[in-house]
Amino acid sequence: MKALEEKIISEGKVLPGNILKVGNFLNQQMDVEFIMEMGDEIARLFHDSGATKILTVETSGIAIAFAAAYAMKLPLVFAKKHASANMSGDTYTAEVASFTHKKVYQIAVSAEYIRKGEKVLLVDDFLAVGNALRGLMSICGQADAEVVGVAVAIEKQFQGGGDSLRAEGHRIEALAKIASLDEKNGVTFC
Amino acid sequence: MKALEEKIISEGKVLPGNILKVGNFLNQQMDVEFIMEMGDEIARLFHDSGATKILTVETSGIAIAFAAAYAMKLPLVFAKKHASANMSGDTYTAEVASFTHKKVYQIAVSAEYIRKGEKVLLVDDFLAVGNALRGLMSICGQADAEVVGVAVAIEKQFQGGGDSLRAEGHRIEALAKIASLDEKNGVTFC
Repeated sequence: MKALEEKIISEGKVLPGNILKVGNFLNQQMDVEFIMEMGDEIARLFHDSGATKILTVETSGIAIAFAAAYAMKLPLVFAKKHASANMSGDTYTAEVASFTHKKVYQIAVSAEYIRKGEKVLLVDDFLAVGNALRGLMSICGQADAEVVGVAVAIEKQFQGGGDSLRAEGHRIEALAKIASLDEKNGVTFC
Repeated sequence: MKALEEKIISEGKVLPGNILKVGNFLNQQMDVEFIMEMGDEIARLFHDSGATKILTVETSGIAIAFAAAYAMKLPLVFAKKHASANMSGDTYTAEVASFTHKKVYQIAVSAEYIRKGEKVLLVDDFLAVGNALRGLMSICGQADAEVVGVAVAIEKQFQGGGDSLRAEGHRIEALAKIASLDEKNGVTFC
């Protein structure tokens, strides 16, 4: 998605440690109209996926997953990272090691929101080593639901997560795919 | 908003401790099309507010705030509850005591996303005692930004937060206003 690449170049910032900050339009501040366009693009890419539900993980995946869910007319579920007084009953959980935050956390989805046989499209903002997506896949597996594909806004291809998931047979689509990222030379796309 | 009241009655669950669970359509699982309709209603209510930005707090406020921002063609900013490696530079922070989670947490917004003179519409899913909104108001105050109004999906009127904010001169609009809530008698609207 050319428009996303342009926005990453003009508004993104490269921080130490291979971190790309897009907080100006895709994280703490959101360009809502642009995110809705990304949702349309995800709907176009996965129109034939047979998805019955979209699953993401809080927090930064929610906006783009919401936009995709709107475009595809599907319900959206997000995995929680933090236990809640509102989460009662059976839950599916998975451990996720975070690249950005350098810690392991647990994600959880109430069993009532992912049913057996459901066809789930995973949507997230970033794909780096792929740990968050593997956590979501584990949750779908526990529910006997099928993952029909993965859509992310930005794949950091050089971190390998996307390619290793593709090698396992998953369909992964990234709206922008970054080949390299450093403070000196900025962002290079694949 | 009659449709929201009906949805609360048909899909909401009352949990012990005056907690209304709407995780089936407004929290962990989202009825995206319905949330977009709530966004349209917020845009209708605040069309004359002069708002230049929408501010909410993660996580459950993001979806309805996103829908309102889309309907009003405004950028959306959310306050983070959890420190992040991506949050560099100056930040505004506030302490918030959570009714649902029974703990005090800090919320934070990067100073670059709320500017002096900005006219901010606060949007959240629930208004109970109003602590989260007071935290967001404190952040706007630190930024010398003006709060032009507050829109929430559901106000638990019996907890007093909305009325005490109104008494201080704030314009508060709730799409559904709950007069009482208990496990035996269910939900009564104002």
